[in-house]
Amino acid sequence: MNELTIFSPATIANISCGFDVLGLALDTVGDEMTIRKVSQKGVRITKIIGQNLPKETHKNVAGVAALALLAEIESNFGFEIEIDKRIKPGSGIGSSAASSAGAVWAINELLGKPFNPLDLVRFAMEGERLASGVAHADNVAPALFGGFTLVRSYEPLDIIKINTPSELFATVIHPQIEIKTSDARNILKTTVPLKDAIKQWGNVGGLISGLYTNDYELIGRSLEDYIIEPIRSILIPAFDKVKEESINTGALGCGISGSGPSIFALSKGKEIATKVAETMKLVYDKVGIEYDIHVSKVNTKGIKILEIK
Amino acid sequence: MNELTIFSPATIANISCGFDVLGLALDTVGDEMTIRKVSQKGVRITKIIGQNLPKETHKNVAGVAALALLAEIESNFGFEIEIDKRIKPGSGIGSSAASSAGAVWAINELLGKPFNPLDLVRFAMEGERLASGVAHADNVAPALFGGFTLVRSYEPLDIIKINTPSELFATVIHPQIEIKTSDARNILKTTVPLKDAIKQWGNVGGLISGLYTNDYELIGRSLEDYIIEPIRSILIPAFDKVKEESINTGALGCGISGSGPSIFALSKGKEIATKVAETMKLVYDKVGIEYDIHVSKVNTKGIKILEIK
Repeated sequence: MNELTIFSPATIANISCGFDVLGLALDTVGDEMTIRKVSQKGVRITKIIGQNLPKETHKNVAGVAALALLAEIESNFGFEIEIDKRIKPGSGIGSSAASSAGAVWAINELLGKPFNPLDLVRFAMEGERLASGVAHADNVAPALFGGFTLVRSYEPLDIIKINTPSELFATVIHPQIEIKTSDARNILKTTVPLKDAIKQWGNVGGLISGLYTNDYELIGRSLEDYIIEPIRSILIPAFDKVKEESINTGALGCGISGSGPSIFALSKGKEIATKVAETMKLVYDKVGIEYDIHVSKVNTKGIKILEIK
Repeated sequence: MNELTIFSPATIANISCGFDVLGLALDTVGDEMTIRKVSQKGVRITKIIGQNLPKETHKNVAGVAALALLAEIESNFGFEIEIDKRIKPGSGIGSSAASSAGAVWAINELLGKPFNPLDLVRFAMEGERLASGVAHADNVAPALFGGFTLVRSYEPLDIIKINTPSELFATVIHPQIEIKTSDARNILKTTVPLKDAIKQWGNVGGLISGLYTNDYELIGRSLEDYIIEPIRSILIPAFDKVKEESINTGALGCGISGSGPSIFALSKGKEIATKVAETMKLVYDKVGIEYDIHVSKVNTKGIKILEIK
């Protein structure tokens, strides 16, 4: 095995009540990457299509993540990375995480799996550090573990893969506007009312419980965010309308994906998720902002191999 | 069936990260109550042994809870309540909740179960309102549902019974000091740092996940409280020492039961829980404060019938 072509999924982080801790992987949106073992040591980004991104290894999130991995192992060969960048940067569905996670996952496969998934998260987080200044794990974790993941703790890093009910689908609308991650973070307050924090962790408990017991109603009731969404949603045109109409259409819940501007809804079954997409389109057609829209089953596997050479 | 004698369990609320939302029921500590159907309408507390508590129906938590139930149903008869009060008031292990929950549970049985467990929580909460001024549910819920319970929301009231791993045991030490619930509440800050709140809900997610997957290590790692315990523990003599030594002895985690002064530890298996009790005793023998100590399996059933007449 000298070359792998993989699908590395887009991800939704900050799932409502689970700000900074809960994420999930998508199945129909993601980057395609080819990683090739070559005799020349080091890491080279040999091709990027789809987006205009730096090919210098140290300036590319996939390159930086790959170097973090290779810094912890002796390797007699190097790696070339080709990226078909299908997730738009700045979309709020883990564009940098997909490339970072994909690179380290494939290199680990080509090296005979010397590292465990938690190590891979750690390496991929270096790509996130390059992209946003913060080495967060809430997108790379679901990309690497699949399904729903909980980042319970950073010190030490502790990631839990949560059960994913089989009929859970996500609808994601990506309005073509830019929200800087730094702005989305600076707008937040550094303290929160204790009573709201209590409601929030009650809902985290409810959401995790609903995921383990396949209780879609409970999942829906728990998809509430008392702390972040009321503040950040003002940056996203028609957020409240999209949310209200999505839930009226049958979505279990609706919230901000990552730090926005994408909005996600979760639904039971593809049929409702597709109707929710139609609803979201109608709202945004009126607003007059261009958008991409995705309907995807929650991807319980994470990164997938498309071709082996 | 005209008379029921029941065991109504003590409970641990505010389980570490799960302040105000997570509770569990004990198995070897609780009140014994006899509830009798009589021709005279209304509710009468006919006997209380073990503690000096008011027998006037409107001043007794069991009486008030029973009246809340009877206010919602036509009944051609009344009820007498006898209480063998084995849980000391002010202990922090749900003394008032046991009596309130026991009364409404038994009356519901004698009436042929017209109400569901969520209704019974609602009625029992009126007893809590009398006891503490706040109609909280985090003790009455585990007493009525058994096992671990999550109070996800109050409006509407939403209570989730969480899976309980079969080898989970609690050790509880009750130092014979008084902490007023109002003091324990007033000492808390009304706002908390967002970064601590995030750690807290990460741990709630980890704890619930560990309970569903019977992952004792994860349960242990998640039994952390960044918000309440650092403040309230200063009211409890030798809290830090008890916690440190309990964990050194093998406990999964340790925290404040309710609003104190009781301290609980959770352990895998009775043997470790018993050793933890010995450790706690040693610490408190040095402190020189009297204490009660309990070792109990987590009670997944809740209230139990001891005798039917």
